[in-house]
Amino acid sequence: MGTKHIITVARQFGSGGRDIAKSLAQELGIKFYDKELISLAAKESGMNPEVFEKIDEQATNSLLYSLSMGLYNFGNGFSAVGDLPVNDKLYILQHKMIKRLAEEGPCVILGRCADYILKDYPNVISIFINADMEYRKNRAIKYHNVDKKRAEQIVNKTDKNRANYYSFYSGQKWGQAQNYDLCINSGKMTQGDAVALIKTYVNLLDK
Amino acid sequence: MGTKHIITVARQFGSGGRDIAKSLAQELGIKFYDKELISLAAKESGMNPEVFEKIDEQATNSLLYSLSMGLYNFGNGFSAVGDLPVNDKLYILQHKMIKRLAEEGPCVILGRCADYILKDYPNVISIFINADMEYRKNRAIKYHNVDKKRAEQIVNKTDKNRANYYSFYSGQKWGQAQNYDLCINSGKMTQGDAVALIKTYVNLLDK
Repeated sequence: MGTKHIITVARQFGSGGRDIAKSLAQELGIKFYDKELISLAAKESGMNPEVFEKIDEQATNSLLYSLSMGLYNFGNGFSAVGDLPVNDKLYILQHKMIKRLAEEGPCVILGRCADYILKDYPNVISIFINADMEYRKNRAIKYHNVDKKRAEQIVNKTDKNRANYYSFYSGQKWGQAQNYDLCINSGKMTQGDAVALIKTYVNLLDK
Repeated sequence: MGTKHIITVARQFGSGGRDIAKSLAQELGIKFYDKELISLAAKESGMNPEVFEKIDEQATNSLLYSLSMGLYNFGNGFSAVGDLPVNDKLYILQHKMIKRLAEEGPCVILGRCADYILKDYPNVISIFINADMEYRKNRAIKYHNVDKKRAEQIVNKTDKNRANYYSFYSGQKWGQAQNYDLCINSGKMTQGDAVALIKTYVNLLDK
């Protein structure tokens, strides 16, 4: 039980990575942060609350807009926040918040380029959860109550958005083994076993 | 001890992936095959021995030649062997040999696109070993007795060749987490711990 590490978890849509990350945090007895919880923490800390309004509606359009315009690249540090599109403001606030949360102590952080944001921090473990398309499609059918065709669309579109988001802000390629400490195909094992494997890894580094 | 699995190990140059793979095979009590041992097995089985002559000298040039000419792509099955460049003949023989070895029983196979060649086989575990450039460079300095600059050249060149070889024959991208069951950053742990982690993984799948 317990760990000194900050654990970032990125995942392909439908891989069950969120459940694995959440369960891992529970079993290690440390906090779990996903997008909503990072935003909540940021709001509670007094960061401009209006930025977090309607984010979900605007994030993708704004990101695509920024990408198409080639306007911003924060790959190596950034300073200006003033007139940025709302999703860029959000990224910057999340960036700050993720660093603050990491400084508070061990936790599991889901997505949000956390592996990249914390790459120079000590005691960070970055994990990527992937699975084959069939497995992810079937999970999407089950959990989103959609047919096979729609499930495949959702999987592909969500992963494309995540890959764009990651490469836009990090300048790195999403899902490249090189960027992570541990990548697991969750489609080959139970969720519990995936959590057990990550715990083994964390314990090996903690010892 | 023991496993029912065929384990393929791909690795970045300097990551120590070969040592990890060899030690894993020893600890699991199963056979280990690298390029030389696959060739040896192929020769012993009566496959055209002349193809294996001077392979090391010709493989890269011939591969680059084939790539530049866009002559061959065996991504989805192949049949012709007749007048192929020697490295393509070698690939095809290694391809056949890897399948034969996998059918003989549990073993560890290093490199040679084995993960791709065996992707439709049951009981195959594909592993990728990566590490950051600093770690790999330092290993290259230590084991190849070269200076820092030369070490970086060797690391980059070897990985570029491996990536080309893999993408040429598999049509997939080398080092993409999606293509493997487990990817490990060996630079963060001892070799023994990396082996222990893989054994834990194999045991979870074997149970």
